[in-house]
Amino acid sequence: MSEHVEEQGSANQEGLGTHIVTQIALVVKDINKTIDAYCRVLGLPRPGVMITDAENANATYRGEPTNAQAKLAFFNLGQVTLELIEPLPGGGGSVWQEVLDAKGEGVHHIAFNIQGTDQVTDHLAAHDIPVIQQGDYTGGMYTYVDSEPVLGVMLELLENFPEDEGGD
Amino acid sequence: MSEHVEEQGSANQEGLGTHIVTQIALVVKDINKTIDAYCRVLGLPRPGVMITDAENANATYRGEPTNAQAKLAFFNLGQVTLELIEPLPGGGGSVWQEVLDAKGEGVHHIAFNIQGTDQVTDHLAAHDIPVIQQGDYTGGMYTYVDSEPVLGVMLELLENFPEDEGGD
Repeated sequence: MSEHVEEQGSANQEGLGTHIVTQIALVVKDINKTIDAYCRVLGLPRPGVMITDAENANATYRGEPTNAQAKLAFFNLGQVTLELIEPLPGGGGSVWQEVLDAKGEGVHHIAFNIQGTDQVTDHLAAHDIPVIQQGDYTGGMYTYVDSEPVLGVMLELLENFPEDEGGD
Repeated sequence: MSEHVEEQGSANQEGLGTHIVTQIALVVKDINKTIDAYCRVLGLPRPGVMITDAENANATYRGEPTNAQAKLAFFNLGQVTLELIEPLPGGGGSVWQEVLDAKGEGVHHIAFNIQGTDQVTDHLAAHDIPVIQQGDYTGGMYTYVDSEPVLGVMLELLENFPEDEGGD
């Protein structure tokens, strides 16, 4: 069935190439306050807080370069990670601040770990779902797409690159 | 550590008794339209649509009995089920219609499968998280709690009862 692999275009892209959701993310105003609440109410172990790296992210937001940053924290909920995002002031626009300004605290996106970001974003664009924000993190890249009007929730695509890429 | 089991109260309730999230739910205006979108965009198999049973639900919404109903559909996203909820008109108030009216289409709740609903709701009430809506389904009961102000998202507690309960 897969003897002829289509090398170009997204005609044969079957959805995201995965149906396994790996992340639920909330945007919040005060990450430490929300961490406190989850630890207290759900009895979860306290996670560390990291700050995204603007310098090496090569990020774009709505087509323009941005140095926006956010504080992040992650709780393990089994297959799914609960991510908390607190956008930091300055540095440029971000979909994190956009959602917080428009809707207040709450669910920001659900994420899927995918392969072949370009093929997947081509597939989504063909379904009227454009890229909003894209950038790198250590070992991979993330892409937020404007899927809420179609799917009722924003999607994030996470692509982790092979560790030994180009090692010979 | 658990030799002395506390039989009463919620003093020893550790969070929800689980950290495994099992459901992400969206409230939508037209469930078939949203099902179409998920099947088309994510390449998911088309699920059936069911209507909740008002007659046997013994449901309460904000402390009053309700016969509210909704159409439901479920997609398998791995550990997590994506639930779509379309509230139906008539029958009384519901947290489904309340969220749709207040915020439009989008994420309604995340769910955990728990044991001992009363202990868990006592624990949550002690953290200023009251019950909003509660009812039965075949083989179990559901409880929505007003956790959004504290946790940034509404929680649903799902308790499936043992099948052979009272069988002797």
